[in-house]
Amino acid sequence: MKVQVCIIGGGPSGLLLSQLLHLQGIETVVLEKYSREYVLARIRAGVLEHGFAKLMREAQCGERMDREGEIHKGFHIAHDGVMDHVDLFKYSGGSSVVVYGQTELTRDLYEARERMKGNVIHNAEDVTPHDLNSDAPYVTYRDGDKVVRIDCEYVIGADGFHGVSRKSIPKDVLREYERVYPFGWLGVLSRTKPVSPELIYAKHERGFALCSLRSQVLSRYYIQVPLTDRVEDWSDDAFWAELKRRLPGEVAARMITGPSIEKSIAPLRSFVAEPMRYGRLFLAGDAAHIVPPTGARGLNSAASDIYYLYHAMVDHYKKGDDAGLDGYSKKALARIWKAQRFSWWMTMLLHRFPDNIPYDDKLQETDLAYLFSSEAAQRSLAENYVGLPF
Amino acid sequence: MKVQVCIIGGGPSGLLLSQLLHLQGIETVVLEKYSREYVLARIRAGVLEHGFAKLMREAQCGERMDREGEIHKGFHIAHDGVMDHVDLFKYSGGSSVVVYGQTELTRDLYEARERMKGNVIHNAEDVTPHDLNSDAPYVTYRDGDKVVRIDCEYVIGADGFHGVSRKSIPKDVLREYERVYPFGWLGVLSRTKPVSPELIYAKHERGFALCSLRSQVLSRYYIQVPLTDRVEDWSDDAFWAELKRRLPGEVAARMITGPSIEKSIAPLRSFVAEPMRYGRLFLAGDAAHIVPPTGARGLNSAASDIYYLYHAMVDHYKKGDDAGLDGYSKKALARIWKAQRFSWWMTMLLHRFPDNIPYDDKLQETDLAYLFSSEAAQRSLAENYVGLPF
Repeated sequence: MKVQVCIIGGGPSGLLLSQLLHLQGIETVVLEKYSREYVLARIRAGVLEHGFAKLMREAQCGERMDREGEIHKGFHIAHDGVMDHVDLFKYSGGSSVVVYGQTELTRDLYEARERMKGNVIHNAEDVTPHDLNSDAPYVTYRDGDKVVRIDCEYVIGADGFHGVSRKSIPKDVLREYERVYPFGWLGVLSRTKPVSPELIYAKHERGFALCSLRSQVLSRYYIQVPLTDRVEDWSDDAFWAELKRRLPGEVAARMITGPSIEKSIAPLRSFVAEPMRYGRLFLAGDAAHIVPPTGARGLNSAASDIYYLYHAMVDHYKKGDDAGLDGYSKKALARIWKAQRFSWWMTMLLHRFPDNIPYDDKLQETDLAYLFSSEAAQRSLAENYVGLPF
Repeated sequence: MKVQVCIIGGGPSGLLLSQLLHLQGIETVVLEKYSREYVLARIRAGVLEHGFAKLMREAQCGERMDREGEIHKGFHIAHDGVMDHVDLFKYSGGSSVVVYGQTELTRDLYEARERMKGNVIHNAEDVTPHDLNSDAPYVTYRDGDKVVRIDCEYVIGADGFHGVSRKSIPKDVLREYERVYPFGWLGVLSRTKPVSPELIYAKHERGFALCSLRSQVLSRYYIQVPLTDRVEDWSDDAFWAELKRRLPGEVAARMITGPSIEKSIAPLRSFVAEPMRYGRLFLAGDAAHIVPPTGARGLNSAASDIYYLYHAMVDHYKKGDDAGLDGYSKKALARIWKAQRFSWWMTMLLHRFPDNIPYDDKLQETDLAYLFSSEAAQRSLAENYVGLPF
């Protein structure tokens, strides 16, 4: 098989890029290690920044998102018994975010690819990129007993943190930056009406909590837990009780609980690999960077890469202009690091850090007090949360 | 002797409060452990925020400051070979700071106190406050062999970090918060024309540097040094060479050097004691809190306390309203902690931290990159640097 662009990874990044390039007449194939059902069973992010939603529309995949997704113009921060409100719309100069589950978004992308007869290959085993530093790279994968070779001009590594793409870059070329946090998030998905139409981020002496949602009938709640906790240790009852303890009384009182339909613990990690290009390979999304979920930047950071890659590929194939491809790594990383900074800041602002000295705990309180006393600080939060300009 | 308010400490805080209260007909005495010459030989801060300058004028001590002090509407941050400019005037909505040495300011306050026959007692040894928790506190000090007793209604502890005032508060009442930094500032004062009319803060891989000034003929330069360094290790030549290395080439090239007329190393420390009131004792300035000098908040934080105390005392003596005195600690601390936050942030932004992991170094770079890409972030910096509202 021969295509212009071979995309490794059939998550939202890979599918979105494939769809965008297809509409510009650029041929792609998407190789996904798992089945479609497996990919769609993963519960992930749910907050799409302004520019991401625009990109979905440009990819002709925005119809259901615009119909079923919710426009959120703000969120709450609960702390010290009070609920403060962050007015994203006002302080970002009229922007907002769309709450729409990654699962739904991925489903829409699969359907669009199918509608346009896009080439998405599932259960592609042992995917391996070759000759990335040459003018004729290719990718192989195994289909049962058969090894299939795909010749291409460019390879996109959109196969997540554990994928093969980043690992194909020689160790002496790649620089990795990492920060781990001494806790994780225990998340529960339940078919209940969310306790609040807008998200509530809660800072509490027992630890962070988040009331999020995927729709007005599907709630997503999280609590900060030690890394030593296991999901089996947490019954639904124990989870609801602990969540309520970390919320203001009036919020806890109106919380509707129900059986969990998904429950998992995710450790928090900050990670960036540089550069994001090696020869004919371009990394995108989790393959190159991870953020703690506090600032809702994970999926949005992937979309940011896709935005730059999409325009770079179009410039290359339509205008013979390689400036976008040559500048991709630098440009993408500049925005990625700002998302890393914001995610770190939101994480530091709201979590309990067991090893903090008392001075640092007071600074953390002060950060919140300053935030809600300063228009400039709220503008800064808002512009980061709705997404900095590309 | 009997006065209404006994002020311990004849630095700028104590003198300013004494002067302000005198003008309202409230009687004070100021007890200073050292001689006037000793106090005036200390080289300290030089950047006065907007509100502080106003308070100096209200105290009828602003004439020389307004004549000789310099209005600064911005400063520079040098990093990665570039010089970025922070436009304080634009981003604070028309505010600015006054560059005027603490030594000159203290001299003006001494002269004002003398002119008005204010009672300032120098070389007061063994100053000791008594019965602070009663309605009849008093302060004793030793004058040669004689012990003098001053009966008063209130005691102000403005005697600095090492003073007796804070130590007079029982340990079980006081909570102290502290953070130390793994470096100090080596400072040099020289009678040379400053290299830049505005301050230059420099972030460099060899460590932080600051080009400050007291006037257009008196320069004040600093470099970050390890805590193990001693002043004796640093010849003037070595200092100038290291300073130049940390500045952009064109700045270093036009630097005029000269013999140091003062040279010292100060460790960096963040410290807050709570509460700031104990019975009839009210703490102000360094007696209750210390900041690293990076954000120019030290003297300004003291002025903030004096502002609140002044108004509280006037309300008490003129209107019989004690709300100001009762709310002093909480109100003063709310602003003090914001100054602590800002000083910590400026320090983290610009210094080299020897124990940083590479991820944190990248975040630090990103913080600067974000700052100069965001109007909101520059507004936040500006409002803190010129002084948050009282």
